[in-house]
Amino acid sequence: MTEIAIVGAGLIGRSWAFLFARAGFHVRVWDPAPEVLDQLGGDIAAMVARTAPYGQAGPDPKGLGGRIRAEPDLRTALRGADLVQESGPERLETKRALFADLDAAADPGTILASSSSALLASAFAAGLPGAARCLVGHPVNPPHLVPVVEISPAPFTDPAVTERARQIYAAAGQVPVVLRREIDGFILNRLQAVVLAESLRLISEGYVDVVGLDDTVRHGLGRRWAFMGPMETINLNAPGGAADYLMRYGQMMADLARTAARDEAFTPEAAAAVGMAFAGLSTPDAIRARQDWRDGELAALAGHLAGRAHPSPSKDENR
Amino acid sequence: MTEIAIVGAGLIGRSWAFLFARAGFHVRVWDPAPEVLDQLGGDIAAMVARTAPYGQAGPDPKGLGGRIRAEPDLRTALRGADLVQESGPERLETKRALFADLDAAADPGTILASSSSALLASAFAAGLPGAARCLVGHPVNPPHLVPVVEISPAPFTDPAVTERARQIYAAAGQVPVVLRREIDGFILNRLQAVVLAESLRLISEGYVDVVGLDDTVRHGLGRRWAFMGPMETINLNAPGGAADYLMRYGQMMADLARTAARDEAFTPEAAAAVGMAFAGLSTPDAIRARQDWRDGELAALAGHLAGRAHPSPSKDENR
Repeated sequence: MTEIAIVGAGLIGRSWAFLFARAGFHVRVWDPAPEVLDQLGGDIAAMVARTAPYGQAGPDPKGLGGRIRAEPDLRTALRGADLVQESGPERLETKRALFADLDAAADPGTILASSSSALLASAFAAGLPGAARCLVGHPVNPPHLVPVVEISPAPFTDPAVTERARQIYAAAGQVPVVLRREIDGFILNRLQAVVLAESLRLISEGYVDVVGLDDTVRHGLGRRWAFMGPMETINLNAPGGAADYLMRYGQMMADLARTAARDEAFTPEAAAAVGMAFAGLSTPDAIRARQDWRDGELAALAGHLAGRAHPSPSKDENR
Repeated sequence: MTEIAIVGAGLIGRSWAFLFARAGFHVRVWDPAPEVLDQLGGDIAAMVARTAPYGQAGPDPKGLGGRIRAEPDLRTALRGADLVQESGPERLETKRALFADLDAAADPGTILASSSSALLASAFAAGLPGAARCLVGHPVNPPHLVPVVEISPAPFTDPAVTERARQIYAAAGQVPVVLRREIDGFILNRLQAVVLAESLRLISEGYVDVVGLDDTVRHGLGRRWAFMGPMETINLNAPGGAADYLMRYGQMMADLARTAARDEAFTPEAAAAVGMAFAGLSTPDAIRARQDWRDGELAALAGHLAGRAHPSPSKDENR
């Protein structure tokens, strides 16, 4: 039985606990705040109630909560874990100190994975005695409803550790993507950043309004990207496949990319314009309600896609 | 009853014919190639058969084909049309000549819309007597399964024409997005271009392989963008909404955008690497089969999303 320790039980940590338990793993959850651990059982039960109608609480929704244990003692939480999923604050000094503690306390064979989206393993794990067992396993919020996990090992991470982490995430039902080299933002946030930059620019310069921008993605690009990536998309948009597409349209796309916005698009004016468009939807209550809506849609979409059982090109032998 | 004329009955033109007829409109289809018109009835019947199981052939699938008429005479096809949807070749001189013909032959009140993805209305309609009734209505392939239509008027287009085109597309069940100023690539292809540029760069420089790149979008970003755009996505990723998000994470995103690839990423080597990843999936037969798979997934996803009836933020009064 795979044993998981969750370190930090905020929104992301609780979602990790849920998804590992959903897969049948045993999960122990530690957090420095006792009240967070006190609420854990109720939070997990609420997640089960919200996801089960879409088939997203696993084969045994009733037993899920029983496989998660709140554990106020860090050392006890770590004992016997195959993998520690750290989901603490995104500050380098905090993360370094925490990883030093984890490395000192965890069994020698335990993988130490961070949910960090902004810090690289080479920054927060360098110099630790157990540096070779450290890596980033970056999820998307919320991990139990969006399956990708970006695995980013440091140059000093043992490749066997990376491979074992990949297997554990895959066994938990996630889709692990292994980065071969570290880069700021990994893959997902780099792609999100270029979309945000060009979107903010198109809005600020008056080409389109916020609703039109969102509609273009939501009723356009996003329809394809929900079940195939941008590379497969272009492979199907020319009679001879992706290479043919890039021969036919590469110059046009290069011209568009050449004139695209970069960091200069992130202006206070652009932020104000976008903020204004969501004026009635940015109070804490409104955002919480809409996050619940989003999570319901994500669960429903996950259920829909699981039911399609379409062939995954990533599993085709000829790819 | 809305009357539509389709000029050019390739893949895109046939899809337009289908979707207008699905909405109950009367559609006449003209194409310079007689064999294309001969096959039209069979093509439409096949589209009905493929989409009806997902509820994407409209309320009257049996009657859909009867509302489409192949018309070998251009002048007859145009007569009485509210809107002409031109879907011919993407060459400026061809498009200019065709629009001159359409403008000379169509009734004065008819809107002349082009499906062009690469040419702007100000380029192909400038100087025509009826320039004010010309615009671009750019669809995504295939339009009957991906609802967005980018409406891009020229500076000389009558705003009342733009508004009437918007109403017609919306009544046909599409999601029209009106651009306020012309720009190469409109919105959708500009966003696609920056994603392709950074994707090709991340693959070429060895950060991730093609499958990993596609998995990151398909099992990550695309899960959210299938039902909400990038602006609403960030509005839900900070406790104070989009403006708060940009204050907290804008600098990080700007740094990622600053170091992102642009046109230099479209190298022959990158094209070869992507082509290689799809080696077994790039024969004409394999691509056709996979396009059919894609269209089935798009139809199923459209059916799923229609069934969700989630509140559209673009229709909220407070946005």
